[in-house]
Amino acid sequence: MIRRLCIVGVGLIGGSLARALREAGYVDEIVGSSRRAGHLQEAVDLGVIDRYDTDPAKAVAGADMVFVSVPLGAMRAVFERIGPALSPGAVVTDGGSAKASVVRDLDAALGRVPDWFVPGHPIAGTERSGVAASFPELYRGRRVILTPTAQTAPEATAKVRAMWEAAGAQVNTMSVEHHDEVLAATSHLPHMLAFALVESLARMAEQREIFEYAAGGFRDFTRIASSDPTMWRDICLANRDALLHALDRFETDLRVLRDAVDRHDDETLQRIFTEAKRARDAFNDPAESSQD
Amino acid sequence: MIRRLCIVGVGLIGGSLARALREAGYVDEIVGSSRRAGHLQEAVDLGVIDRYDTDPAKAVAGADMVFVSVPLGAMRAVFERIGPALSPGAVVTDGGSAKASVVRDLDAALGRVPDWFVPGHPIAGTERSGVAASFPELYRGRRVILTPTAQTAPEATAKVRAMWEAAGAQVNTMSVEHHDEVLAATSHLPHMLAFALVESLARMAEQREIFEYAAGGFRDFTRIASSDPTMWRDICLANRDALLHALDRFETDLRVLRDAVDRHDDETLQRIFTEAKRARDAFNDPAESSQD
Repeated sequence: MIRRLCIVGVGLIGGSLARALREAGYVDEIVGSSRRAGHLQEAVDLGVIDRYDTDPAKAVAGADMVFVSVPLGAMRAVFERIGPALSPGAVVTDGGSAKASVVRDLDAALGRVPDWFVPGHPIAGTERSGVAASFPELYRGRRVILTPTAQTAPEATAKVRAMWEAAGAQVNTMSVEHHDEVLAATSHLPHMLAFALVESLARMAEQREIFEYAAGGFRDFTRIASSDPTMWRDICLANRDALLHALDRFETDLRVLRDAVDRHDDETLQRIFTEAKRARDAFNDPAESSQD
Repeated sequence: MIRRLCIVGVGLIGGSLARALREAGYVDEIVGSSRRAGHLQEAVDLGVIDRYDTDPAKAVAGADMVFVSVPLGAMRAVFERIGPALSPGAVVTDGGSAKASVVRDLDAALGRVPDWFVPGHPIAGTERSGVAASFPELYRGRRVILTPTAQTAPEATAKVRAMWEAAGAQVNTMSVEHHDEVLAATSHLPHMLAFALVESLARMAEQREIFEYAAGGFRDFTRIASSDPTMWRDICLANRDALLHALDRFETDLRVLRDAVDRHDDETLQRIFTEAKRARDAFNDPAESSQD
């Protein structure tokens, strides 16, 4: 149970956690904070939070659990504000898509990595954003990755795990480094490819005509290029090393495919496409993806 | 109006054309041909075709319109069979995803590019295949590209255009070369990227774990990697030159993005992502994509 939950950054992610915990009867009071009072008032009107303060230092006072759900580029400033204002025994976690950078920002903000911080990442979201898009079922059956540091207190990790489980999520723990590698491969790299492809086509002279002849496959493939540019700029910079590694590995693999096309090497093409289809079909199997 | 339509290759594409023209009352009789009698009998049982012959030379006899919808790698053999067997005045078109290779195959099969051939490509399909998956609305509001050659008779093009319009499609004409460039960019290249990405991840040691943490964006992005490996091997080889050109341009553009990540160049990342989002959102606009 959480007595007072403070959510810094009340959008789709923070708002959905608030709704889920409220619905589960897992929290007594929810305090919100963000830079814009208008958004916070909307969250109060929607019943997502009970009250708010635009100053995160004031909002976290008396909270036993704090969830920081702001863009990666804003993490350090939030940590600088809330660090000295936390109540004794308070646990802090976050929702950032890259974890090493969040730990670095915390270290830079406070001069140490404290035992009350549990880096986290809910693998969930929709193409929409903002508190009005939030809903209590967002995390049901979804994965949440926690990446406790060497300093993190096991009791703090247990509390954050219990919170996410109350919201309906499946919780796994792994190292910060492994999280950043896995997410670079399955999320950050695909976003780079989609952004690069669409921008590349958009710059071609016949761009309007080109998009006219794009079919459903292109639509699916490039959907993620509609994602928020600022959020993704921040993710790229925050997870730079793992992303560069994933990009370089992909370039090497794409080069194998290119050379096979160039050489008319039908066996290599058939092998790569067959392996890819098998992996994708297995991923698609209802038994393996019941959370969708 | 078509008196007798012959469809060589009665799957999703050919079967849906048959159903659409039947429903529109645009055809008197439909004869099917393919290598497997079992598939053809199924098409008869479903009411998609009236009768069949596994020998395409016999199936095309007496037809005034022939639609060849076989894998690109099988085109040449079909042309060799049907070329000498066509009735005077018959018009032949096809559904191949690359057009220069089809024209080359025809030239190789018959020693010339005849005036009765109209290369074509319906930009439609689903992830399913086979005649059982065919349905009359597949082409409604979809684009069909015709790429008449210098030899193609204008009356032949007019007949093929009228057929596709009767099936509910929007018909455009362009050169063979331009078709192949546009499709390389919007279809063939994205398929290469999806196949390469999934195969690359599948080979990583922790593959099962990696796919476990993939979210909805990855699912959409890689859906096309479930496509038929043999069909895509054929497309890659058939549209080799345009595909290599598209791949090389993409590699250059991806390198710009990579370098921006490497240099922490937030302005370049923001600019590229913003341009990509703008182009993708415009493409997604209901007014521009009413056919979806």
